[in-house]
Amino acid sequence: MSEFPKTTLNQVNRKPARGQYDRDVIYPLLDEALICFVGFNDGEQPVVIPTLHARVGDTLYVHGAPASRMLKMIVSGAPVCVTAALVDGIVFARSVFEHSINYRSAIVFGHGRAVDSDEEKLCALEAITEQVARGRWKDARRPTQKELDSTGVAAIEIESASAKTRSGPPADPEEDLALPVWAGILPLSIQAGLPLSDSKLLDGIRAPEYIAGYRR
Amino acid sequence: MSEFPKTTLNQVNRKPARGQYDRDVIYPLLDEALICFVGFNDGEQPVVIPTLHARVGDTLYVHGAPASRMLKMIVSGAPVCVTAALVDGIVFARSVFEHSINYRSAIVFGHGRAVDSDEEKLCALEAITEQVARGRWKDARRPTQKELDSTGVAAIEIESASAKTRSGPPADPEEDLALPVWAGILPLSIQAGLPLSDSKLLDGIRAPEYIAGYRR
Repeated sequence: MSEFPKTTLNQVNRKPARGQYDRDVIYPLLDEALICFVGFNDGEQPVVIPTLHARVGDTLYVHGAPASRMLKMIVSGAPVCVTAALVDGIVFARSVFEHSINYRSAIVFGHGRAVDSDEEKLCALEAITEQVARGRWKDARRPTQKELDSTGVAAIEIESASAKTRSGPPADPEEDLALPVWAGILPLSIQAGLPLSDSKLLDGIRAPEYIAGYRR
Repeated sequence: MSEFPKTTLNQVNRKPARGQYDRDVIYPLLDEALICFVGFNDGEQPVVIPTLHARVGDTLYVHGAPASRMLKMIVSGAPVCVTAALVDGIVFARSVFEHSINYRSAIVFGHGRAVDSDEEKLCALEAITEQVARGRWKDARRPTQKELDSTGVAAIEIESASAKTRSGPPADPEEDLALPVWAGILPLSIQAGLPLSDSKLLDGIRAPEYIAGYRR
């Protein structure tokens, strides 16, 4: 089954036509996002932390210092929500009311566990590194045992999820079309600039293509 | 007092040197971010929703359908966390371990309330519209009473907050500097493309400068 069942947890109630439940829609959004936002409860208090992530099958990995609040909360097994959003453009309508954003967002729900084995940790760190820049893992120095021991990794098993997206032009009502107000879409995207070499870089080393030609 | 007191809630524990508590640092980050991520509890379950926002003084406004789960939860007065993150670049180090992201993030904590008066609602909608594109409010058709009535607005009073930022080059240890691996920064930024006029646009209307020359 590729679809997550609709439940009270993941169902898109507002503008339900924008909701999607298929892994084939949700997972590419998670994978395209450079960062995600992890929500957990610290007692009664919700906390939302931005972090890097990577998805392997139905598992989402995040990493950090083992003593970080976020990792401790995730590995405690408490319920977690992870959200990622891609902004594709601003929708300028004739009326304030119809202004909107073209976006693709994914929300996943699950429970966390600690990743203890070196083998799964390395797989997760490879996935996170490749999620940031595909091709980097083979070039960079791999973690030493000491570095691995000082890196905390948490796995979140994705149990429920949904995507919500908007695309296309503004949806002004007929009676507003005669207003002399510019309307349309302003596309937005994440663009990479020129790579800035570290001042201590050895002579003659150029940025590889996956950096010099970086695209998301 | 411009600084939020450090408490167990807002204190940056991991890499404390990256933490800042001054409104003069935190608020410009919130204002620069196009979207934020609102965390609340639905029972035991944390939920994180991406949305537009605007800050007026120590108040953060969000809007949506009055019946949306997010707005209902916020106006219930339960604790809320709102997080925004700006990604400035990818930090490529010689080792996997020292890879990082240059970022500026803000986390705010507070409690919500419903915005009931038309006057405050209009102020909030103006702030949100201007947060998306400065200059838009004066050009677009203002909300009718019916539109205003069908728009829910919530205010979150910011009670505690912190910012966390990283900038600068990779921090490889001395012994890695001899590795023949490219290291440095790849700058990332949000770029606007060319405005796409709506197919039903009246002849002769051009995108105003705050759209054609859009920058964040």
